[in-house]
Amino acid sequence: MPKPKFANESLTTMTEMVFPNDTNTLGNLMGGNLMRLMDIVGAICAQKHSNRIVVTASVDNVSFKEPIPLGSVVTLQAKVTRAFTSSMEVAVEVWAENIPAQKKIHTNKAFLTFVAVDQSGVPIEVPPVITETDEEKEMYEGALRRRQLRLVLAGRMKPEEATELKAIFGL
Amino acid sequence: MPKPKFANESLTTMTEMVFPNDTNTLGNLMGGNLMRLMDIVGAICAQKHSNRIVVTASVDNVSFKEPIPLGSVVTLQAKVTRAFTSSMEVAVEVWAENIPAQKKIHTNKAFLTFVAVDQSGVPIEVPPVITETDEEKEMYEGALRRRQLRLVLAGRMKPEEATELKAIFGL
Amino acid sequence: MPKPKFANESLTTMTEMVFPNDTNTLGNLMGGNLMRLMDIVGAICAQKHSNRIVVTASVDNVSFKEPIPLGSVVTLQAKVTRAFTSSMEVAVEVWAENIPAQKKIHTNKAFLTFVAVDQSGVPIEVPPVITETDEEKEMYEGALRRRQLRLVLAGRMKPEEATELKAIFGL
Amino acid sequence: MPKPKFANESLTTMTEMVFPNDTNTLGNLMGGNLMRLMDIVGAICAQKHSNRIVVTASVDNVSFKEPIPLGSVVTLQAKVTRAFTSSMEVAVEVWAENIPAQKKIHTNKAFLTFVAVDQSGVPIEVPPVITETDEEKEMYEGALRRRQLRLVLAGRMKPEEATELKAIFGL
Amino acid sequence: MPKPKFANESLTTMTEMVFPNDTNTLGNLMGGNLMRLMDIVGAICAQKHSNRIVVTASVDNVSFKEPIPLGSVVTLQAKVTRAFTSSMEVAVEVWAENIPAQKKIHTNKAFLTFVAVDQSGVPIEVPPVITETDEEKEMYEGALRRRQLRLVLAGRMKPEEATELKAIFGL
Amino acid sequence: MPKPKFANESLTTMTEMVFPNDTNTLGNLMGGNLMRLMDIVGAICAQKHSNRIVVTASVDNVSFKEPIPLGSVVTLQAKVTRAFTSSMEVAVEVWAENIPAQKKIHTNKAFLTFVAVDQSGVPIEVPPVITETDEEKEMYEGALRRRQLRLVLAGRMKPEEATELKAIFGL
Repeated sequence: MPKPKFANESLTTMTEMVFPNDTNTLGNLMGGNLMRLMDIVGAICAQKHSNRIVVTASVDNVSFKEPIPLGSVVTLQAKVTRAFTSSMEVAVEVWAENIPAQKKIHTNKAFLTFVAVDQSGVPIEVPPVITETDEEKEMYEGALRRRQLRLVLAGRMKPEEATELKAIFGL
Repeated sequence: MPKPKFANESLTTMTEMVFPNDTNTLGNLMGGNLMRLMDIVGAICAQKHSNRIVVTASVDNVSFKEPIPLGSVVTLQAKVTRAFTSSMEVAVEVWAENIPAQKKIHTNKAFLTFVAVDQSGVPIEVPPVITETDEEKEMYEGALRRRQLRLVLAGRMKPEEATELKAIFGL
Repeated sequence: MPKPKFANESLTTMTEMVFPNDTNTLGNLMGGNLMRLMDIVGAICAQKHSNRIVVTASVDNVSFKEPIPLGSVVTLQAKVTRAFTSSMEVAVEVWAENIPAQKKIHTNKAFLTFVAVDQSGVPIEVPPVITETDEEKEMYEGALRRRQLRLVLAGRMKPEEATELKAIFGL
Repeated sequence: MPKPKFANESLTTMTEMVFPNDTNTLGNLMGGNLMRLMDIVGAICAQKHSNRIVVTASVDNVSFKEPIPLGSVVTLQAKVTRAFTSSMEVAVEVWAENIPAQKKIHTNKAFLTFVAVDQSGVPIEVPPVITETDEEKEMYEGALRRRQLRLVLAGRMKPEEATELKAIFGL
Repeated sequence: MPKPKFANESLTTMTEMVFPNDTNTLGNLMGGNLMRLMDIVGAICAQKHSNRIVVTASVDNVSFKEPIPLGSVVTLQAKVTRAFTSSMEVAVEVWAENIPAQKKIHTNKAFLTFVAVDQSGVPIEVPPVITETDEEKEMYEGALRRRQLRLVLAGRMKPEEATELKAIFGL
Repeated sequence: MPKPKFANESLTTMTEMVFPNDTNTLGNLMGGNLMRLMDIVGAICAQKHSNRIVVTASVDNVSFKEPIPLGSVVTLQAKVTRAFTSSMEVAVEVWAENIPAQKKIHTNKAFLTFVAVDQSGVPIEVPPVITETDEEKEMYEGALRRRQLRLVLAGRMKPEEATELKAIFGL
């Protein structure tokens, strides 16, 4: 097993401008384009943690609450939350900023998982994650629950075996 | 309330080739690029159902099981499953095909929700969905459960109130 | 000679949205961008018929009668009309739709030819086309005439030998 | 009627490199991408002649004889051949060059027509073309014949009325 | 005059992956694409300092010493060094990283200047820069010298009046 | 040493339209996009002179005086000024044209240097430049001075050794 690494070592920041071609009829960033950015920043973050080539395994539910207009500056921040053998969960936070108006809002939070692979695409073990801050510890704890949800949704775990998940529903 | 419409009237097919710039280091389609396509085909489908401008409200958990290599032909098919006042759930299926090798595989299934809005971005009512086939009826039924999961994940519904969801966990 | 295939097996549908960068000063889709889409959908269609890599051999006269504004949904449909040894003629129809306005118009029809090649680019025989509908039969018949026109225009056939073409001019 | 202008005043040269995303599976420039470039250079040329906004009206038969590999330098040259009230025919020549190999070939010749329009898209008269060289005169003569072919193909002229065309077929 | 701001408040980090279409024949990031990224990160940084729309006024000499291969992760960091009425000098540092090989190198340093403008493009005063660290102070000092060089190169200052510059040449 | 070539043999003209995605919030071409075009036209020009693969070594100070609005036609012209063993200095001139308004302005002049390399990236000797016109001779003379400035700025030459440069400052 590779030597454990601090969550914070994987911290990756991406700053982008919203260009005309990224927008929909109302002049706001299209959801799919934001997901493309989330995937790239998440992949770079997972690469940093594992020092491996990584492939996207899944993207958890993402909701889009706030329109992000043309000309906004979008900041994405990604950090590994927990590793499971060859896969890593990455949390991606997104902020949108209208700089001349001095208005910055938190627009999205998403969890993506990546698998580290060798040159032929075979999964390969990654370092466990060492948490330091309270937020990192909370993310680390929640990762197991989110993982069970992913497995249940993918039909690879029976709902009744998802003990962590059942707990949420007060059972 | 607008006049109900058949689910099938919203059926939208998109066919794309995987170009070099869409691929990762291993030469396979990046997950984020596929999500961008899912968002576009889903938005066109929701537009067809509602005859309105639509914005992406959420994308449910998507998992990427199969690599889709450079040069593949990707087919996406989107259909509205159910409407909730001003929002619509759209199911998107994805197939990847290596035509010279005569190999076609089903690679992804995802649920996205879109909200119909007027020119100033204010939500506006959409037609209810009329189902015809068994598959459409099953999708329609499941839509409520998926909606509760989205609300719980977004912190807008308490898990113990998600009656449909609790049923899944055998309670 | 490969086993004949039905024209309909090659049917390919592509749905696209018109984004800002695809438009000219008047905010309409540029002709060249539409031709790029025609080429891609035609190539996928010819690949489906031949199960081979294909390269574009020619594009027949295309006329642009209707402006297609930003935000329109463009639907392209391609079907093989006839095969000539290693080349295939593909008919591409284009519709543009302003969905909120419930206005859909047929904007273009074009014929493209593709040649099936092996990995080193050498032409390779393709399946003959079996027609079923009246429209397919008409397309099949016309393909010979269009082919003669192409050969005459490319200087590879003398006008007086283009018997099919001469017939059109009432001789 | 605007004051006549020399054909040569509209001469427009475009030089481009073939990038990875422009190529097909065999690593050659896709036909549709070349047509997109022809459309842009042709539109700039027609703008120069008319000093107006222009829209693409048609593209004549284009054939692709030579593969243009990744890394090639593509040179396009456009010149107005003749004007018809508000429309202009533009001839576009294409050369592809492998500079390190010192190999330059003429790959395509195409005729496109553009219509000059005002800000609301209404056609507007353009200057007649004054020819100087023998090649320009030949192009000017042929423009009428090509125009009749376009009209016949678009179903806007009866073949038997296309006197210029009939002459070609030795009648 | 707007209230002075700390240099560090403008710090902007951009992380990008090198995609196939960004590379030259040797598979390395093209210089012009890197300059495009420098311009974007610099503009965001200058926007943060001034809370205004900004336009690029100049880019100082940039040299490209190290090839940055396909698949590399490029990190750009921008910080305002000094303000001159309505213009700001921004320093952009670039690192390229081959993460699987655990190799990260500093590849470029560039100075760009941006002018803050109002909606009609008229220059508008920006906050002076407050330096804290030694590096920021050094940058601040050097900004005057670089500004004189820019003015001399642009022919807007006589070399003999560029007192700061003359000092460099040991006079 | 390769046989000398005329400066004029490397002349390269590129014509581009400014598309929506190339523009900033004010609707003008972003500086970084123009630099990307300068790099491409300069690289093609240096390839023509050397008949080799080339890589960008440096871009000298570029200033942006004039906004270039959406829809403008941008013409870039590149010519080799002088060769230094394996490197070449290329001068790039840029004009922007609003064709309907019949307004054409000279917007930028930049000097870029490129190094000719073999397939493994090793520098390789290039032909000396033969000048013919007065302008070419003047460019040739100035190249040495600009080269010293580049070396001084890159910290590879001591200012006091830059004899050509010192002359400018009247020493």
